[in-house]
Amino acid sequence: MNRQELIDQIFTKKTFLCVGLDTDIKKIPEHLLREDDPIFAFNKAIIDATAPYCVAYKPNLAFYESMGVKGWISFEATIKYLNENYPQHFIIADAKRGDIGNTSAMYARTFFEEMNIDALTVAPYMGEDSVTPFLQYEGKWVILLALTSNKGSHDFQLTTDAEGERLFEKVLRKSQEWGNADNMMYVVGATQGKMFEDIRKVAPDHFLLVPGIGAQGGSLEEVCRYGMTKDCGLIVNSSRAIIYADKTERFADVAAEEAKKVALQMAQLLP
Amino acid sequence: MNRQELIDQIFTKKTFLCVGLDTDIKKIPEHLLREDDPIFAFNKAIIDATAPYCVAYKPNLAFYESMGVKGWISFEATIKYLNENYPQHFIIADAKRGDIGNTSAMYARTFFEEMNIDALTVAPYMGEDSVTPFLQYEGKWVILLALTSNKGSHDFQLTTDAEGERLFEKVLRKSQEWGNADNMMYVVGATQGKMFEDIRKVAPDHFLLVPGIGAQGGSLEEVCRYGMTKDCGLIVNSSRAIIYADKTERFADVAAEEAKKVALQMAQLLP
Repeated sequence: MNRQELIDQIFTKKTFLCVGLDTDIKKIPEHLLREDDPIFAFNKAIIDATAPYCVAYKPNLAFYESMGVKGWISFEATIKYLNENYPQHFIIADAKRGDIGNTSAMYARTFFEEMNIDALTVAPYMGEDSVTPFLQYEGKWVILLALTSNKGSHDFQLTTDAEGERLFEKVLRKSQEWGNADNMMYVVGATQGKMFEDIRKVAPDHFLLVPGIGAQGGSLEEVCRYGMTKDCGLIVNSSRAIIYADKTERFADVAAEEAKKVALQMAQLLP
Repeated sequence: MNRQELIDQIFTKKTFLCVGLDTDIKKIPEHLLREDDPIFAFNKAIIDATAPYCVAYKPNLAFYESMGVKGWISFEATIKYLNENYPQHFIIADAKRGDIGNTSAMYARTFFEEMNIDALTVAPYMGEDSVTPFLQYEGKWVILLALTSNKGSHDFQLTTDAEGERLFEKVLRKSQEWGNADNMMYVVGATQGKMFEDIRKVAPDHFLLVPGIGAQGGSLEEVCRYGMTKDCGLIVNSSRAIIYADKTERFADVAAEEAKKVALQMAQLLP
């Protein structure tokens, strides 16, 4: 999906919500455990229920890998289901990959060519040749970690160099030599509040993928106040607060209600 | 495997070689493609042939994930085979993971508890809470990316802060507040040559996992000159130069010859 198609989706549906499919076998409703593939059954129900209220889905690979081969089967089934039934939704594999060039190229082939995923989160520590293999695909995106939502984001990302530039700013600046606002986004945690202003100084046009509202405590209003652009420029993710809002047989309906609440807030906040 | 057991293995076998199982379906001998699981068949033959000459094996997850569900089956079969037949070998999953705390905890459970892998490579960008969940397992290791072997390592890892400390040095120093030389190693690329001296100033006792000899051009002598400690302190990885040394039916024998050559060099270089 290219940038204009994403923007069109956002303004047509009046939402920039991404539903995080962090599906944990220990947290899904018990009755699903009778299914052949409980993880996929859960995802399918959540997707069908929340699709009108979001523009993107983001499975975090860790949750699937933790189940080994079975988890990969559920992951692939979920991606296939999304591709076949919701081609207008942007699919993000939250994988936080990044390796030497030939290995990154391998990851790119897997996620972009074979699975037809739209975007992949990538860790920047290994630099240019770990990122550029992901930028060779028309309509596909790298989402580079910049300023994350967790406490540990302070350990290295805020380190200031001799010229007064912080590491996350250097990541934003330097990576714009490799890609642009049509094939690159950045992860910026919702918990970073006013720091979005600093992000926008270096990356005024790029879309930002924003985790951390809901369970992690970030504020949607604050993110929009400091981070929104005329094109919206934000994809805001919520995982646990939506997908685990209810654990009975009504779980998908309740997830839809929660997603709808966030979407209504978002409609108010769009330019 | 704990530190003393690893050191004992190294000095008993007189080798500190790690064989990288970067197994690519496009590069393995053609006759293996007739097997049910060609990737596992290749790994099994390589492991059986090279085991006397190395102390560790390191599958890079990217190569397995690139084959989706099938790849995970091959990966799990390889780990199981190593655990059952070569319990004295140190198993490293080269995954370069790192995510917010609860997600890292999930990865730790997968690789350490369920798969009984000894060590996992982890990317430091997200800081403390992305790393510490991996340090909660007795006899298990985090191998943190410090100064990698690729060209892109210059982009961020060498950034100097206002106090004159480079980012890789900060990673080395800061991470020693979270773990120690008994549960943490660092990735330092063989291509970094004399920089090993700087690494040893900050991390005098830690084991270093050193990729980049062979196909990537690093020098074993140089790595040892600047990076070796009285306990050896090095696990040096070679992947392509060993496992793809030959593509005929003799591939495993030739891999063994190559591994043996490196091991003989290593025996000379050990203190």
